[in-house]
Amino acid sequence: MRELLEAVADGSLSPAQAEAELRGYVTGDAGRFDAARQHRRGIPEAIFAAGKSAEQVVELAETALETTERALVTRASDRQIEALESSIANSYPDAIVDRRGTTVHVRTPAYDPPSLDATVGIATGGTVDGPVADEAELVCEDAGIAVDRVDDVGVAALDRILDQLDRLREADVLIVCAGREGALPTVVAGLVDVPVIGVPVSSGYGFGGDGEAALAGMLQSCTILSVVNVDAGFVAGAQATLIARTIGAARE
Amino acid sequence: MRELLEAVADGSLSPAQAEAELRGYVTGDAGRFDAARQHRRGIPEAIFAAGKSAEQVVELAETALETTERALVTRASDRQIEALESSIANSYPDAIVDRRGTTVHVRTPAYDPPSLDATVGIATGGTVDGPVADEAELVCEDAGIAVDRVDDVGVAALDRILDQLDRLREADVLIVCAGREGALPTVVAGLVDVPVIGVPVSSGYGFGGDGEAALAGMLQSCTILSVVNVDAGFVAGAQATLIARTIGAARE
Amino acid sequence: MRELLEAVADGSLSPAQAEAELRGYVTGDAGRFDAARQHRRGIPEAIFAAGKSAEQVVELAETALETTERALVTRASDRQIEALESSIANSYPDAIVDRRGTTVHVRTPAYDPPSLDATVGIATGGTVDGPVADEAELVCEDAGIAVDRVDDVGVAALDRILDQLDRLREADVLIVCAGREGALPTVVAGLVDVPVIGVPVSSGYGFGGDGEAALAGMLQSCTILSVVNVDAGFVAGAQATLIARTIGAARE
Amino acid sequence: MRELLEAVADGSLSPAQAEAELRGYVTGDAGRFDAARQHRRGIPEAIFAAGKSAEQVVELAETALETTERALVTRASDRQIEALESSIANSYPDAIVDRRGTTVHVRTPAYDPPSLDATVGIATGGTVDGPVADEAELVCEDAGIAVDRVDDVGVAALDRILDQLDRLREADVLIVCAGREGALPTVVAGLVDVPVIGVPVSSGYGFGGDGEAALAGMLQSCTILSVVNVDAGFVAGAQATLIARTIGAARE
Amino acid sequence: MRELLEAVADGSLSPAQAEAELRGYVTGDAGRFDAARQHRRGIPEAIFAAGKSAEQVVELAETALETTERALVTRASDRQIEALESSIANSYPDAIVDRRGTTVHVRTPAYDPPSLDATVGIATGGTVDGPVADEAELVCEDAGIAVDRVDDVGVAALDRILDQLDRLREADVLIVCAGREGALPTVVAGLVDVPVIGVPVSSGYGFGGDGEAALAGMLQSCTILSVVNVDAGFVAGAQATLIARTIGAARE
Amino acid sequence: MRELLEAVADGSLSPAQAEAELRGYVTGDAGRFDAARQHRRGIPEAIFAAGKSAEQVVELAETALETTERALVTRASDRQIEALESSIANSYPDAIVDRRGTTVHVRTPAYDPPSLDATVGIATGGTVDGPVADEAELVCEDAGIAVDRVDDVGVAALDRILDQLDRLREADVLIVCAGREGALPTVVAGLVDVPVIGVPVSSGYGFGGDGEAALAGMLQSCTILSVVNVDAGFVAGAQATLIARTIGAARE
Amino acid sequence: MRELLEAVADGSLSPAQAEAELRGYVTGDAGRFDAARQHRRGIPEAIFAAGKSAEQVVELAETALETTERALVTRASDRQIEALESSIANSYPDAIVDRRGTTVHVRTPAYDPPSLDATVGIATGGTVDGPVADEAELVCEDAGIAVDRVDDVGVAALDRILDQLDRLREADVLIVCAGREGALPTVVAGLVDVPVIGVPVSSGYGFGGDGEAALAGMLQSCTILSVVNVDAGFVAGAQATLIARTIGAARE
Amino acid sequence: MRELLEAVADGSLSPAQAEAELRGYVTGDAGRFDAARQHRRGIPEAIFAAGKSAEQVVELAETALETTERALVTRASDRQIEALESSIANSYPDAIVDRRGTTVHVRTPAYDPPSLDATVGIATGGTVDGPVADEAELVCEDAGIAVDRVDDVGVAALDRILDQLDRLREADVLIVCAGREGALPTVVAGLVDVPVIGVPVSSGYGFGGDGEAALAGMLQSCTILSVVNVDAGFVAGAQATLIARTIGAARE
Repeated sequence: MRELLEAVADGSLSPAQAEAELRGYVTGDAGRFDAARQHRRGIPEAIFAAGKSAEQVVELAETALETTERALVTRASDRQIEALESSIANSYPDAIVDRRGTTVHVRTPAYDPPSLDATVGIATGGTVDGPVADEAELVCEDAGIAVDRVDDVGVAALDRILDQLDRLREADVLIVCAGREGALPTVVAGLVDVPVIGVPVSSGYGFGGDGEAALAGMLQSCTILSVVNVDAGFVAGAQATLIARTIGAARE
Repeated sequence: MRELLEAVADGSLSPAQAEAELRGYVTGDAGRFDAARQHRRGIPEAIFAAGKSAEQVVELAETALETTERALVTRASDRQIEALESSIANSYPDAIVDRRGTTVHVRTPAYDPPSLDATVGIATGGTVDGPVADEAELVCEDAGIAVDRVDDVGVAALDRILDQLDRLREADVLIVCAGREGALPTVVAGLVDVPVIGVPVSSGYGFGGDGEAALAGMLQSCTILSVVNVDAGFVAGAQATLIARTIGAARE
Repeated sequence: MRELLEAVADGSLSPAQAEAELRGYVTGDAGRFDAARQHRRGIPEAIFAAGKSAEQVVELAETALETTERALVTRASDRQIEALESSIANSYPDAIVDRRGTTVHVRTPAYDPPSLDATVGIATGGTVDGPVADEAELVCEDAGIAVDRVDDVGVAALDRILDQLDRLREADVLIVCAGREGALPTVVAGLVDVPVIGVPVSSGYGFGGDGEAALAGMLQSCTILSVVNVDAGFVAGAQATLIARTIGAARE
Repeated sequence: MRELLEAVADGSLSPAQAEAELRGYVTGDAGRFDAARQHRRGIPEAIFAAGKSAEQVVELAETALETTERALVTRASDRQIEALESSIANSYPDAIVDRRGTTVHVRTPAYDPPSLDATVGIATGGTVDGPVADEAELVCEDAGIAVDRVDDVGVAALDRILDQLDRLREADVLIVCAGREGALPTVVAGLVDVPVIGVPVSSGYGFGGDGEAALAGMLQSCTILSVVNVDAGFVAGAQATLIARTIGAARE
Repeated sequence: MRELLEAVADGSLSPAQAEAELRGYVTGDAGRFDAARQHRRGIPEAIFAAGKSAEQVVELAETALETTERALVTRASDRQIEALESSIANSYPDAIVDRRGTTVHVRTPAYDPPSLDATVGIATGGTVDGPVADEAELVCEDAGIAVDRVDDVGVAALDRILDQLDRLREADVLIVCAGREGALPTVVAGLVDVPVIGVPVSSGYGFGGDGEAALAGMLQSCTILSVVNVDAGFVAGAQATLIARTIGAARE
Repeated sequence: MRELLEAVADGSLSPAQAEAELRGYVTGDAGRFDAARQHRRGIPEAIFAAGKSAEQVVELAETALETTERALVTRASDRQIEALESSIANSYPDAIVDRRGTTVHVRTPAYDPPSLDATVGIATGGTVDGPVADEAELVCEDAGIAVDRVDDVGVAALDRILDQLDRLREADVLIVCAGREGALPTVVAGLVDVPVIGVPVSSGYGFGGDGEAALAGMLQSCTILSVVNVDAGFVAGAQATLIARTIGAARE
Repeated sequence: MRELLEAVADGSLSPAQAEAELRGYVTGDAGRFDAARQHRRGIPEAIFAAGKSAEQVVELAETALETTERALVTRASDRQIEALESSIANSYPDAIVDRRGTTVHVRTPAYDPPSLDATVGIATGGTVDGPVADEAELVCEDAGIAVDRVDDVGVAALDRILDQLDRLREADVLIVCAGREGALPTVVAGLVDVPVIGVPVSSGYGFGGDGEAALAGMLQSCTILSVVNVDAGFVAGAQATLIARTIGAARE
Repeated sequence: MRELLEAVADGSLSPAQAEAELRGYVTGDAGRFDAARQHRRGIPEAIFAAGKSAEQVVELAETALETTERALVTRASDRQIEALESSIANSYPDAIVDRRGTTVHVRTPAYDPPSLDATVGIATGGTVDGPVADEAELVCEDAGIAVDRVDDVGVAALDRILDQLDRLREADVLIVCAGREGALPTVVAGLVDVPVIGVPVSSGYGFGGDGEAALAGMLQSCTILSVVNVDAGFVAGAQATLIARTIGAARE
């Protein structure tokens, strides 16, 4: 610990990095960032932007970059993302900012991404499922997992799914996102022999709308599925990552 | 009317038949039987047994036989069916009693079934959907519609459905019964060009059980379906009959 | 196929038309347009605008016009419709744009509408049910079905319905839209002998508001109804079209 | 009070009668009987049997008879009614026991029924609504209100209602009991100019079953209704009594 | 009828007045106005503004004024009320416009209000219940019923209710509006012997918020209440009017 | 620990007592009994009988007696209580068995009850709330808290509550049990200045029945209440005990 | 009373102060302020700002300051708080305004805060629980209770809770605020021996979102908790105050 | 295929075995048994007994034994299990019948269990979670996965979980079963770095009972979980098997 403090004293380590090293998390005005999460849980902590101010999101993302050289922000609004981009343009002008839908991934040149011999497949029923799948996709990629994504294979036109079956079967784990009646994960899980995680999407209207029919249908599925909450692309991606990581480790 | 009353007087017409002729319904202790329903609605009245005593069911069925030469009893318990069978053995020893699941159809030799050039297809996902499909089937047959039934084609094993596609495509209307996540009507409706009526079945457990997930999923379907209430095989059969009858009439 | 590709090469066929011909659908940035749906399902694909950007709606509508000479857009906002109208004014200056409520139908002069010997009746309880009925009406008309519409016959003043009974009885299929307690389809279905499709409308407030009481009431109806989801005018219109088309075909 | 106590002392008043006179209620092992309720609220207290033991029901009914010369028991099981009948056969051999469905009214020869110049009309949709209407009917009669009951006028066959319109219009208040979709009170209230109280009945199945669709529909009604809880025949009868009593009083 | 048409011809009757006289309602672009409702139901038709455009509200109100010399508009927004006021300032410069909360009553000098010997009491728990009570109050006054209003007597401070008991007991019917837990109608109904109509108000938050706890509590009340939907001040006022009118008539 | 094991060896301590002393809990076939709970949480562990076999309940109760000289069993069926009584008659013939409703308290002569200078008041609305209040009462008494119980003070007759106000005000904490609309805790909390814990009771029927209206009403209460789950007399009693214990300790 | 009126006459007492003294509450255009609440209930009345206009909030706060020298405003919007601050800057330039989240506490120099020997601990799971905890905290402080607050101890990282256990155990009562799955109060209550009040927070999304999962989880907790409604920080703070006050009083 | 048919002809293959070989499933009166499921999905088909007759269960189990040498029956009643045991005693006297709770596993001596280098950990909160965990356990063992089971580690006593942490961390996948508030999977997932599947158990009572609070809590969990339906031990076991199988394969 003496070393650490000396590193802080001579400026080679920021106080945040030192706190992260010593306690595992960094405390700021915007709350705590759990810098040790990757060690403890195998997946780095993401910043859930909804319900936070743009300032809080920026502060947490800066802390993430300072301590882990990458940041993953989910459920971000346009205003939050703009604030984030302009802050990073200052602090990390060389950072790569990868925005997909409402999810943003940032990595500095110093970031050394993990690499694992495992693939997560992600399938969606239609356009509206895209942002939820984006969230899952970036979580997996952030953890070094290869992602194979297959869009627009809704059950209303069955041959689209059958066409993509070989790709779906090659993944180690599948994440299947679907709104409305949410039948896609059931149909897919009946055709493959890898674990399928269903993600209900909050589309639909009237009775069972906002993803409730999809959630109920996936929980009642007559094939084998596990499920996450409505629109919980992050959780699905993180769970797939935990599974894929063990598989990848076993392959080494 | 004079004639009618004279026919009652000389015994060639029972009072119930005369009341049915004059008012369209017959009033007894067990309630009214709507003998004119077939004329008015195109489908004969059925007797919904649930919540009635065995005596009430028997009385209504006897009235149906007396005025229309056939009786259709739905949601009947074993006790109700036994009472019905022993009563009919006395009153109409030559009647044919056709019991499927909880539905019973009785017809006397004098019954002259209608015949229509139209076919209703009925598909089920699994064994548990059987009694609901039976209810629909007997309603259609009672109205003279041909029925083509395809069982056990649940979405968990997709090739079973694909195998039966030609039969499904030949029907004029399809009734598709499914419990659990209720995805079968959606998958079928994506593969055929005839109207599909979805019937949610009260299987399943936990969240969305008792047919609620199936109902929500069918209402949210991304293809074209109309839907009836959970386990409402009778309603689906009657609606399919109304459709098929017009088609049959147009073909003549 | 050689021919097709040559037609593309010499410009007599656009790439989208060729893709539509070959694969049945056209893929663009805004998602897929299922150009073969009319062949497969008997009703042309509609573009569900809610949840899409104005740009995506315009792109899909242009693809629909390019491949099928007509486009049907449902649940469109004012902003989406304006974008659509200004785009079409450029690309298809001679096209006819028919806007009713939140539904828009566009057809080019080259469009050869189908014509069928069948009528769909549409009844509404009150003014608030209008846009949902409009959606159903345009779907039927798009498929060449004659529509007879009867507005403002809510059950609170029964004689309005009784006055229109003859018109309602002449249709081949009836679509009945009603909000609040949703009793109109039940009352109508008790008076006619054609199939009735109930459409719950999201009016009402407090307990059972937003169409939930109407949906529950239609599913519980003591007459014969099939039902679609709350505000699902498109689904009701498409289902009525599928029924009416078979009837029309049988009449030929 | 001295007088009262002397009357107890010489046996011309029972302790229960004296307690009822002094405090308004009588306390026993089975709970309190509110003997003064008729004075305070204008309707005598009823004994809600569900959830009580047969012994408790008997004790409360005996107290009611002792202090008010009549007893009204609602939601009674066969076992409770048998216990009640055998107890009363002993204690009040001359009492008249009037049982309808699950409701029982008992009155001793000493009972001097009130009489009011007002009529409550009660209408039901079908057989299953009978016991709920019985409950309402006995409450009104217990309070001396004339009841005109019209059964089996469900909305599926509208002419049955229209046939009975004159009778319905003559009542001062109407109670309308209906299960399934519960549309009857709405239809009736659109045809009469007296207050209508809707009583949802716990029939039906699937979505909106057990009276929920009926309750929601009555609360959403597009005419003027007030409503009581599902199966609350007693409450409807008591509310109608409070209204009719004021009308009757105004007529004197 | 000849006379009527001649009156139209010579301009002494507007077409709308003639249509109202002949058919009972007037049809315009904004829908139908039921001018005969007062005759048929005893309460004049109100215009439910929510979900209508300002133009539609103005048109319907003008029709109401033209045919019945008064107009009652409920659930109106500020924008709708401003449009209404400016329109009436032109068409009926002498009309009296009475706005309370979101309800507006307009009457021309030609309006001859009915007068009845009956009183409706209206009680509220707190400030938030005000607009709902206003709606009920204006309906009663529009029908010529005297209203006695008692505000701010919530159950949290019981002595406020006890203080007002004499006033509450003098009314012929009571309307009691309460949000949150909705206990006020129960407490009041336990203290008076007139009919009480409970109106749940959509206050509250979290579980049971938006009036749901209040509605459930009033339906479960251990005293005698009938209930209307959440915020349905109009329905409560109209039902109280129907009751009070009969009482008033009986007093004459 | 050596001492303990020697005590086991010489039989002066049973193995269960030793395990309880060492680990805080005792493991048997029927699960674990948390003998140290009283130390850790201040209230002894109770045995929740519902869902356990009679044998499991008996085993756990015997363990409780062996290690803490008392046992508290809640939600017990008749069969479970009989098994318990006959087992205890053998093992602890001198034990006192105190059964109230579905709750049973057993104590051996060796039991030295705690005594605290604090009182919990318990009020109920009616007879049906009795067993829930019994559960709360026995928990408090088991912990040495004095209980003052006031029954049958439902809000339908307000003067009963006002009569008991002085007693209610003298308690240190109040538990108020009420079913149906659950207004009693709100009314009581408006009249006293001590903390009130509301316990919804699963009475009622139809909408909001089984305690749901009562729970919602207590959570929405416009006075200050904290609440436990429906029928959770045990939790209310234990929470009141935790509060009263601190007060009692502060008084010493 | 004579004295009071003379004090009003000579201006040494404002009319509002006199009304507060005489009747316990002050009536203004914005409703009643219950100035005597502190005496009656032991906690001063708070002003619930949601659903009130800025003017009403200001008026009520001014009345509170005039009669009790402090004001507590909860659920205030930015606009309401600005209006309040500018009003108070005029009327009470020396007042201290303490704003935390959406709660504001104001006290004049004349305010003599109560002081009690009791501590309430408040724990939160994460940043989003902050404003709810602020509300509880200011209520306690307003009543003179010491508060020890522990933030950011969510169950996802258990050692954070274990680190703070000693502080949590020292409080007399604990308020634990948690959203999402709401497990924190259960985990804390398993580790301490003081009463714990759980406050569900309306975070979360999809199924069980908006605090519903947290509420359900706290009501189902396998340890001893009492609960308040979702986001009801005020109620939790007031209930904790009532408990702590008795403890503080007992300590004196 | 010729060979197969000859094998049937000479009796070395039963017709069922031949059908299983050729079509993948065997059709009997009790429905289809999917003998090829293990190949297709990697987990053998289980027989869901609930809702089937004892005869159907026996027939399906016999078919399973005939074609796969093992049978797994879930949700079986005592009557079904007795029928199964007596049937197997005849047909496969050497078979091993392993019954745990409501799940039964049967294997003939010819059964050659798969063996995989992977471990599934199963944790339960309390006794009531046992049968659900049994179901999951037998599914895993049936597929050759090692199971490490840790019972009775509910969150109310946190040190029990902490004691077992090392075992939990050694598994490749964890299944965590919990009823009531369902917090255990969240707490466990915060302490380990392997994928956790949460299984809500239908314990609890009142609001959120029957597993609903647990399901909602797991879906809202602030750590990473995927979830199955209430009591779906089979689904959790099968999903864990699919994951563990891939891990096991990767290790080889």
